Amino acid sequence: MNYNKKSLALHKKHQGKIEVRSLFPLKNKDDLSIAYTPGVAAVCLAIASDKRLARTHTMSGRAVAIVSDGSAILGLGNLGPEAALPVMEGKAALFKHFGGVDAFPIVLDTQNTEEIIAVVKAIAPTFGGINLEDIAAPRCFEIEERLKKALNIPVFHDDQHGTAIVVLAALHNALRVVGKDMCDVRVVVNGAGAAAVAVYHIMIEAGVVSGNVIMLDSKGILHARRDDLHGYKKKIALETNSEARHGGLHSAIIGADVFIGVSAPDVLSPDMVEKMADNPVVFAMANPDPEIAYKTAKRTKIAVLGTGRSDYPNQINNVLAFPGVFRGALDVGAQEIREDMNIAAAMAIANLVSNNELSAEYIIPKPFDLRVAYAVATAVKRAWRSGGK
Amino acid sequence: MNYNKKSLALHKKHQGKIEVRSLFPLKNKDDLSIAYTPGVAAVCLAIASDKRLARTHTMSGRAVAIVSDGSAILGLGNLGPEAALPVMEGKAALFKHFGGVDAFPIVLDTQNTEEIIAVVKAIAPTFGGINLEDIAAPRCFEIEERLKKALNIPVFHDDQHGTAIVVLAALHNALRVVGKDMCDVRVVVNGAGAAAVAVYHIMIEAGVVSGNVIMLDSKGILHARRDDLHGYKKKIALETNSEARHGGLHSAIIGADVFIGVSAPDVLSPDMVEKMADNPVVFAMANPDPEIAYKTAKRTKIAVLGTGRSDYPNQINNVLAFPGVFRGALDVGAQEIREDMNIAAAMAIANLVSNNELSAEYIIPKPFDLRVAYAVATAVKRAWRSGGK
Repeated sequence: MNYNKKSLALHKKHQGKIEVRSLFPLKNKDDLSIAYTPGVAAVCLAIASDKRLARTHTMSGRAVAIVSDGSAILGLGNLGPEAALPVMEGKAALFKHFGGVDAFPIVLDTQNTEEIIAVVKAIAPTFGGINLEDIAAPRCFEIEERLKKALNIPVFHDDQHGTAIVVLAALHNALRVVGKDMCDVRVVVNGAGAAAVAVYHIMIEAGVVSGNVIMLDSKGILHARRDDLHGYKKKIALETNSEARHGGLHSAIIGADVFIGVSAPDVLSPDMVEKMADNPVVFAMANPDPEIAYKTAKRTKIAVLGTGRSDYPNQINNVLAFPGVFRGALDVGAQEIREDMNIAAAMAIANLVSNNELSAEYIIPKPFDLRVAYAVATAVKRAWRSGGK
Repeated sequence: MNYNKKSLALHKKHQGKIEVRSLFPLKNKDDLSIAYTPGVAAVCLAIASDKRLARTHTMSGRAVAIVSDGSAILGLGNLGPEAALPVMEGKAALFKHFGGVDAFPIVLDTQNTEEIIAVVKAIAPTFGGINLEDIAAPRCFEIEERLKKALNIPVFHDDQHGTAIVVLAALHNALRVVGKDMCDVRVVVNGAGAAAVAVYHIMIEAGVVSGNVIMLDSKGILHARRDDLHGYKKKIALETNSEARHGGLHSAIIGADVFIGVSAPDVLSPDMVEKMADNPVVFAMANPDPEIAYKTAKRTKIAVLGTGRSDYPNQINNVLAFPGVFRGALDVGAQEIREDMNIAAAMAIANLVSNNELSAEYIIPKPFDLRVAYAVATAVKRAWRSGGK
């Protein structure tokens, strides 16, 4: 099927993808007097005297803003807010379908960190959560961090944490397949953007040893002696790569148990795979063309292969995470989404694959598995209630 | 019926009033590939190369932000953004029901003019129009004026222009009933807030002579020698009240043909009505209790009475205007809503009452008259296309 052509046609037909609908009947004068004046005044006054009622008596208890500045749209780059809208509307559609969450896109005519923070703070009373989306690194880190501090509702950068949750779920099960342990594996993370950094952090929390990780940006391996590194990359260079390797992927890949690609098509050659440890795990998540083509990969010694694509086994797709994460956070009135909640979400996804079902071709539920959002939401709620302990 | 109790119960039951829904099916892998990746990338790229396609291929061509800082909620005052949400959700429900417009509330955690302007400018690419709502005067005037200049989508402060459109429609037909002419009538506007000022301006555009208008604020008649007036009130004091009356409503009302109340309950006494000209028109729009109680008014010489209430004849309600105004503006891709479009909307509403139907008890269509939004939209489109000529 030509998805591009179908997608263009359907977007034009419906003039976009989401609509706003009333939950109240509006058939007669009484309906109008209940939904609007004069009856609505009672709701306004009740909330004015106890703001917590906004969560139970307005949509703010179940509404999420999908905020983007259009600076890192899919793998397409900085296309601006107008071109970001189809992605954000799609996200809203998925939020509703899988999580029953009422999400609404907000695309911004600014890519300035301070302005983005100010706008999100200003609109926050409208929503029960903020999903940051397709905002470029390193700006996304500061925006998320400062908004988390400023707001008492969940702030979640999906490109980071959504990806990290699903990768951790997939990695957990891939290691079950190959019989390796999180604390032993050597991991190469190819890419150093928002997703790569979040994947790195959640793996460390989940037991991977930071010295056993090697991360690469477009210039090669992050190591302590590179003088072009600042900020978060510098910090990661100092924590990781205990062997102080330098050079490119050819050097990094030697002996690796796991390759996690959030980078570009065809950068992982069959030669490189041969240099990996036995039974290697490869998550080649560049979209739409993975770091190693599926057919090529199948002729190598790769033991478990995951991609971002729906037409191959083991699709590593954020949609497994964000609907359930926000559903759970909203249901329990969580003021934030902590890393322990992300890990709980990952484990909930992983545990939906039973020992009987688990195989190299099935390490993670399919995006259309409707059990997933419920399981994730339940795990997130439990983690929130346990207070991170 | 106890609207307050019903409204509170229904808001709690549904957790607010509106929901977001997908217009695309999401049943299987193909659906997902069309609504989201990879198919959506084609839409993003098309818009990136021609931004105008955002209006035809995303919701921005039919979505309206209902923006409020919660500073002037209904007649309740400054209750803040959380307590404003039930009103804004109600507005969104009415937008959809009557105009097929997908409107979404955005309530702001700021009442600072500069910050409100900055936020609305930043979120503007998401929307095809901005409906400002329940923002206090005089702030609302500057916010609307500057946003109209800054943005190339319609910006419409409904408390001003929605009210003005419906009042003009009602006034037009009330004068048909009493056989008076717009250019002859003496008009008292009791109140000097956002609605009062807009009503004044549209009446002048429609033929009322400014010197024949007297406006009052909480301290009495606006006149040139009051030294406590600044800004817009000073300007109106200089334009109106050619007889230089001073004092309060007792003084203003003498000989008036029309009383327009956007003020407070029971301020217009039967004594005052007796001092008005013969066959006076009274629009007592304070909510929920009008400037003169209905039963009291019916014992006076008032010839045509309108109120804001749904339980009496001649309900003067903004819902007759805003859904059709935005429907028309969005359909024609109008970059702004000009005063000539507002007047066209008012005339379209007035003209739905035929000569046969017109009476003192029926000067304006009922809020549930589904012909209204279509007629308003058609008139607004025609006015836009004629370019204000």
